[in-house]
Amino acid sequence: MPYITIEGGALTREQKSELIRKVTEVASEVMQIPMEFFLCTVKELPDENIGIGGRTIDLIK
Amino acid sequence: MPYITIEGGALTREQKSELIRKVTEVASEVMQIPMEFFLCTVKELPDENIGIGGRTIDLIK
Amino acid sequence: MPYITIEGGALTREQKSELIRKVTEVASEVMQIPMEFFLCTVKELPDENIGIGGRTIDLIK
Amino acid sequence: MPYITIEGGALTREQKSELIRKVTEVASEVMQIPMEFFLCTVKELPDENIGIGGRTIDLIK
Amino acid sequence: MPYITIEGGALTREQKSELIRKVTEVASEVMQIPMEFFLCTVKELPDENIGIGGRTIDLIK
Amino acid sequence: MPYITIEGGALTREQKSELIRKVTEVASEVMQIPMEFFLCTVKELPDENIGIGGRTIDLIK
Repeated sequence: MPYITIEGGALTREQKSELIRKVTEVASEVMQIPMEFFLCTVKELPDENIGIGGRTIDLIK
Repeated sequence: MPYITIEGGALTREQKSELIRKVTEVASEVMQIPMEFFLCTVKELPDENIGIGGRTIDLIK
Repeated sequence: MPYITIEGGALTREQKSELIRKVTEVASEVMQIPMEFFLCTVKELPDENIGIGGRTIDLIK
Repeated sequence: MPYITIEGGALTREQKSELIRKVTEVASEVMQIPMEFFLCTVKELPDENIGIGGRTIDLIK
Repeated sequence: MPYITIEGGALTREQKSELIRKVTEVASEVMQIPMEFFLCTVKELPDENIGIGGRTIDLIK
Repeated sequence: MPYITIEGGALTREQKSELIRKVTEVASEVMQIPMEFFLCTVKELPDENIGIGGRTIDLIK
C-alpha cells in the first residue's frame, strides 16, 4: 500500500515505465510514504471500451 | 465524474457502444448530472477468469 | 457476473435504489443476460476525494 | 455479493480455476456467506504494466 | 503485486484480519508467490449501495 | 479518460488536493493528454481494511 491504478488507452512500453515511476515519485512525496511500499498498475483499454458523455472514444476521435 | 465500469464477458462493438450510451443516459437522469461529465468503461474478461460460486464460467457453461 | 460499479458523489437512498435498478435493466437488455446475474455497487466519495483536470470538486463547485 | 478480484501477472487455466475455488471457499467460511453468492474475477496484466516501488516488473525480474 | 480486493457488507475487525490472512495464504500457495508480495484490501459497503438482480440488499433482506 | 485512482490510508484535505493535482500533472505530461480530460479519485481505507503479506496494517504498525 498505497495502490495506484491508471486506466486509459494504449501506451508504449517507455510511457508505461515513465508513468509508473513519476506517478509513484510524486505520490510518495505527498503521502510521505517510501516509494518501495507503492504498487502501481496501468490498465490499457481499446477505444471502443471507453465512453465519455455516453459516446465511445472510437466514434469521438 | 461520475465513473461507471462494467465488467463481464466478451461483447460486440455495437453492444459496447449501446451499453455505454444507455447506461450513461439512465445514470445521468437519476443522478441529475449532465451526460458529458460521465466516464464509462467496459472491461471484458475471458470465461476462465470469471468465477461464480467458486467455479469458473467456462466450466459452468 | 456481470459486475457494474458506479463511483461518484453522495446520493440519496432513493437515488441509489433507482440507479441500481435502471442501470441493471438496460445492461441486462443490451448484454442479453438475465437481471438476476447482475451485481451492481454504488461507491460514494466526498468531493475532496474526486478530481477533474487536477482540481478537487470541492474547489470547483 | 461479495465480489473478489485478484490482479497480477499471467496464470495458467488450472491456476485460475484453483485460485477462484480456494479463495471463494475461505472467504465464504470467514464471511459466513454461502459460496454461490460469491463473484470472483482474475485480472492478468503484462509485467510492463505493473510497478513496485516505481519500477516495472519486467525491469525488476 | 498481486493485489486482491474483497468488496461486500460490513465485517468485524476479527473477520477482516482472518479474511486477509487466509485469502493471502491460499492465493500465495496457488500463484507460487511469497505472501509478503501480496497486497489485500477489504471494501465494506452499506446494504443500500449493493444491488443483486437490480434490487438493493437492504430491500432483499 | 484517463482515470486514476489512489487507494491508501487516511490523508488530510491538503494532501488529497496536492496529490490529485501533482499526479494528474505528471500523467498528463507522460500520456500527452490535456489535464482537463483526467479523472482522479482518492480512496481512503481504515488500517484494519488493508493487508500486506497477509497481516493488517493496524497490527503491523
